[in-house]
Amino acid sequence: MNKSEEIKFTHRSDKDKKQLITRLKRIEGQVRGIQNMIEDDRYCVDILTQISAINAAMNNVGLNLLEKHARHCVSDAIQDGNGDEAIEELMDVFKRFSKS
Amino acid sequence: MNKSEEIKFTHRSDKDKKQLITRLKRIEGQVRGIQNMIEDDRYCVDILTQISAINAAMNNVGLNLLEKHARHCVSDAIQDGNGDEAIEELMDVFKRFSKS
Amino acid sequence: MNKSEEIKFTHRSDKDKKQLITRLKRIEGQVRGIQNMIEDDRYCVDILTQISAINAAMNNVGLNLLEKHARHCVSDAIQDGNGDEAIEELMDVFKRFSKS
Amino acid sequence: MNKSEEIKFTHRSDKDKKQLITRLKRIEGQVRGIQNMIEDDRYCVDILTQISAINAAMNNVGLNLLEKHARHCVSDAIQDGNGDEAIEELMDVFKRFSKS
Repeated sequence: MNKSEEIKFTHRSDKDKKQLITRLKRIEGQVRGIQNMIEDDRYCVDILTQISAINAAMNNVGLNLLEKHARHCVSDAIQDGNGDEAIEELMDVFKRFSKS
Repeated sequence: MNKSEEIKFTHRSDKDKKQLITRLKRIEGQVRGIQNMIEDDRYCVDILTQISAINAAMNNVGLNLLEKHARHCVSDAIQDGNGDEAIEELMDVFKRFSKS
Repeated sequence: MNKSEEIKFTHRSDKDKKQLITRLKRIEGQVRGIQNMIEDDRYCVDILTQISAINAAMNNVGLNLLEKHARHCVSDAIQDGNGDEAIEELMDVFKRFSKS
Repeated sequence: MNKSEEIKFTHRSDKDKKQLITRLKRIEGQVRGIQNMIEDDRYCVDILTQISAINAAMNNVGLNLLEKHARHCVSDAIQDGNGDEAIEELMDVFKRFSKS
């Protein structure tokens, strides 16, 4: 059932998980809120303002994960002598992230 | 119940509404998917890849709304002689959107 | 000498031109400044800070042109009944701009 | 004359310097090209297309520097036990860069 060869894992503290999930639940609610705004024929610009707010919130979650990734996964890889691959991956993530 | 002085409206066709809401429901599901990935201690980079996908999907919804806004609301305002205000608002949305 | 079929024009006031060119000359100087920083082996992060400043300045020039374009070219096109094409072009510019 | 306490340095190979400076000279030429386009009343959209090209080229220079920074400066700092500060600085650059 578990393809552990393909799926990689990162340990996170309960506190970190809780914080991230709280933020994501709020974003989920904001996405539902936009569905209601569309149902209710709300003004485009007000919906676009909400979309910008969701993007900003999502980017904050992303930057939070990226920082922890750099601070833990990449640091560990560098100290284990596998820094090159880890940094290449980090740069790929960053490129994708800064364009999205 | 309705503060029509404050809340502005834009008429949308049933087809447009359906399409937008379908896309937003998919995004909502993706946001829930990320919560599961965090619960399951999934690898940061895989989560960040999902976040980039959500941002891209959200931006597509935004660009779709923005295009319809320009094509209808702004066009109408220009033809009614209220173009200046409409274009100022459009530029504000652009700026907010291109930074988020 | 002039391929007027291919090259399109937009009239700008002398004041607008002067203002834009002053800003672009400053950006040109900043780009030269970065070359010197690289020659002088200056610290990456300080160079990256300068690059962010140039991007921000360049985006301001772009937004200024985009606003004037919307306010004049697009408005005129809409009033002349050619709004669809003008707005399609505006959205293309915006998409390219928000990704670059 | 030299405030070496304040100015930080990064060693770069002659090949790297040459490559970066060649790219920056090309960008400098593109910025001058835009000044000419403005002088010549060229169409806004064509100028905006050039600005997008400059932004993309500038971002490439930035990503190139960022990658080398991560691969050398940050890696060295982590191996020397100063990783925390280096990663905080890297994240700051990321944030500034992804917003500009």
